[in-house]
Amino acid sequence: MSQPIGRRIWAIAEGYIPPSSTGSTRELTSHETVCILNAGSEEARVEITIYFADRPPAGPYVFIIEGQRARHLRFNDFTSPEPLPSGTDFASVIKANVPIVVQHTRLDSRQAALALLSTMAFPVE
Amino acid sequence: MSQPIGRRIWAIAEGYIPPSSTGSTRELTSHETVCILNAGSEEARVEITIYFADRPPAGPYVFIIEGQRARHLRFNDFTSPEPLPSGTDFASVIKANVPIVVQHTRLDSRQAALALLSTMAFPVE
Amino acid sequence: MSQPIGRRIWAIAEGYIPPSSTGSTRELTSHETVCILNAGSEEARVEITIYFADRPPAGPYVFIIEGQRARHLRFNDFTSPEPLPSGTDFASVIKANVPIVVQHTRLDSRQAALALLSTMAFPVE
Amino acid sequence: MSQPIGRRIWAIAEGYIPPSSTGSTRELTSHETVCILNAGSEEARVEITIYFADRPPAGPYVFIIEGQRARHLRFNDFTSPEPLPSGTDFASVIKANVPIVVQHTRLDSRQAALALLSTMAFPVE
Repeated sequence: MSQPIGRRIWAIAEGYIPPSSTGSTRELTSHETVCILNAGSEEARVEITIYFADRPPAGPYVFIIEGQRARHLRFNDFTSPEPLPSGTDFASVIKANVPIVVQHTRLDSRQAALALLSTMAFPVE
Repeated sequence: MSQPIGRRIWAIAEGYIPPSSTGSTRELTSHETVCILNAGSEEARVEITIYFADRPPAGPYVFIIEGQRARHLRFNDFTSPEPLPSGTDFASVIKANVPIVVQHTRLDSRQAALALLSTMAFPVE
Repeated sequence: MSQPIGRRIWAIAEGYIPPSSTGSTRELTSHETVCILNAGSEEARVEITIYFADRPPAGPYVFIIEGQRARHLRFNDFTSPEPLPSGTDFASVIKANVPIVVQHTRLDSRQAALALLSTMAFPVE
Repeated sequence: MSQPIGRRIWAIAEGYIPPSSTGSTRELTSHETVCILNAGSEEARVEITIYFADRPPAGPYVFIIEGQRARHLRFNDFTSPEPLPSGTDFASVIKANVPIVVQHTRLDSRQAALALLSTMAFPVE
């Protein structure tokens, strides 16, 4: 099971960090997530670029994911080179040096009950 | 990062503008959205055609998206050549002159708590 | 825009008709839907087969979709050759004589607020 | 309709068993599900490996799915070789000896109203 799986470039056209939450724990705080599976043995270096409606792209945001590990990265937590604004539409492109699998998930708890969405990202190549 | 990413034709078989909302802000108003990423340097000219159950297609609705920008277009806001009815099933085909990435998202706030759905559109070619 | 778009065979591995609803209108009744876009000029003949956990498949359920039309078919409404049970896991395969695009959506209103899910079906060929 | 449909390897980058539920029935208990369609005549032997953020993978979890049947497997119910923790991020790779179709669904009832997400898994090969 040490073979890498997936593609090296993925895209997500939807992105939005809900600007408020009713949940108070980290678990129930509204969040926008990019889930990444690195099924191969080799460490993955992942670079994420963020696109906006009315300004140049931000990033790259760089993450290292060990071999045979999965990481759920919250866009809310992105800090360097700059934090991402909440309540703002964006999109993202995810590039890695090895094949990975990418999925997009949002938990929105702005109202009294949470809402969820998820989709596989688009495998570019 | 100025290479275009994606495909030139996409399709979304589901479409429905919820006819009411409990949220009063634009942010929490029920909406049906097509999210488009134009990762390339060149401006994208996007034409959207809408299909219905019992009448001929509407459109094309034309949008210009600058290079290296992402736009989340609400079907609710489509006005020309004609507004789209709410509470009505539809589908859409999105064509561009350059590769783009397309994702479909709905926020439904008809009841006391909002609901979300999202999926990558189908990449036709 | 009279070219057909999509594939002739699609599959949906998830299927479940929620057995109750809080909404009383057709619009807010819990439903499981297969959304089909027939973007070509020619009429589509669509045959849907349903697979279960512990009994042989049901169907085919046959639908005619005119050219350049989109239909959102509720599994709840399937009657011939037999109605589908609610509260039961199933899956479906959708075959057509012309290329179509297929998306799967559920509206679940069993509890006080509705929930939604949607995904493009898997394009088999 | 006895031809197998799909792919032999699939991946899901998102995985999370919500650690609590407001619903008390099995139907409304929070669950994370992998839905598998085996449309061919031949029995499918399915092996699922689970990837985590900070420990080696778990599994394989082995399931037999008869020909022309669909099964919705809850990660909550996985027991051998070890149960899966709730409240923990994971990802999964699904391998079968025959083509299958795989979809990922979550029902989250941690708050007063349930939330749903679903997406086709990523078809690896």
